[in-house]
Amino acid sequence: MSRDGKISDSVIRRLPRYYRFLGELLEEKTSKISSGELSKRMKLTASQIRQDLNCFGGFGQQGYGYNVAELREEIGKILGLDKCRRAILIGAGNLGTALALHIDFHRSGCELVGIFDSNKNICGEDLGSLRITDIAELEQFCREHSPEIAVLCTPKSAAKELCDKLIDLGVKSFWNFSHYDLNLEYEGRDIVVENVHLGDSLLTLTYHTNNR
Amino acid sequence: MSRDGKISDSVIRRLPRYYRFLGELLEEKTSKISSGELSKRMKLTASQIRQDLNCFGGFGQQGYGYNVAELREEIGKILGLDKCRRAILIGAGNLGTALALHIDFHRSGCELVGIFDSNKNICGEDLGSLRITDIAELEQFCREHSPEIAVLCTPKSAAKELCDKLIDLGVKSFWNFSHYDLNLEYEGRDIVVENVHLGDSLLTLTYHTNNR
Repeated sequence: MSRDGKISDSVIRRLPRYYRFLGELLEEKTSKISSGELSKRMKLTASQIRQDLNCFGGFGQQGYGYNVAELREEIGKILGLDKCRRAILIGAGNLGTALALHIDFHRSGCELVGIFDSNKNICGEDLGSLRITDIAELEQFCREHSPEIAVLCTPKSAAKELCDKLIDLGVKSFWNFSHYDLNLEYEGRDIVVENVHLGDSLLTLTYHTNNR
Repeated sequence: MSRDGKISDSVIRRLPRYYRFLGELLEEKTSKISSGELSKRMKLTASQIRQDLNCFGGFGQQGYGYNVAELREEIGKILGLDKCRRAILIGAGNLGTALALHIDFHRSGCELVGIFDSNKNICGEDLGSLRITDIAELEQFCREHSPEIAVLCTPKSAAKELCDKLIDLGVKSFWNFSHYDLNLEYEGRDIVVENVHLGDSLLTLTYHTNNR
């Protein structure tokens, strides 16, 4: 299996979709699937799917198709879901609350271990199985629990300073909803960033709506 | 200017980013920028940027760079931001509330005209400048206001039936957060869908965290 880091970004981008679709197939009790069927479901060409999965060693058998459970497990391992990394969430407003309650962190190889906010009125309130903690306690918490991932749901204005601090405290990965493009600042510093710009997604929809 | 619909998907995906970055430049009172400077900011190559912008006729002048305001306005027109399309949001839970309050629909060429939920306990409450309406009134509302875009923040289980209904009521575009892949159902039916899978985004981050 090729895990030498040479996998292209576009293949990596598709891995979560494969993982999700294979999970749905398992829920439907489908135990094997051909690249042709998978391609219809995923709106990719069958040859694209064969090519993608060959990147990881190829799990298909001629005339049989893919074993859904095995393939899903293998993709899960490639994604790193057999590990569990500690994550904290900062900013318990509506978006932060939505993420804390509705995202299955465990299923994504993470464990949400802390939620922080600067609004003292909500500190102490429960959010799911966690309690919202005053951001003033962030430093001590990080020293004690060494989280590796931070989910940023703060306003743009707070993001840069907060990130510098979190990086000093050992956080290496950011799931960033703050409207501030983090990767531009931290290039070459071994920091991993996934910027989520929901506004860009709506603009893309607007474009397609106007050009149907 | 080439607006013959031959613009590739990857260029279209980058348009909202160009638009956002140019907006930030304007806020910083930057009136012109070279493709080299823009490339540093956007983490694209200068030649990629020149190629992208040439798709729309090319706005740069040799030795001068791009006029930020003009370029932004032109990209805005291509995105369709000079129009204003009516949008409704369905599902006023945490995520729906976050979107209703924090997304600048106007800036994205839309106007949010209605918010619906099936939970009678929150119907009648204000959300931003709108009031949450009982989903039972959806049909009548659509007949009267003809919204074109629906933002779906419902559970996966409700999405399919709701979409069929909305399509019958004339909605053609879906910004879909429901974990249900809509475009697979409505292929070839002139329906525009932007599926947002936040879980896929977290899985991508997990992969990169494990493969730093």
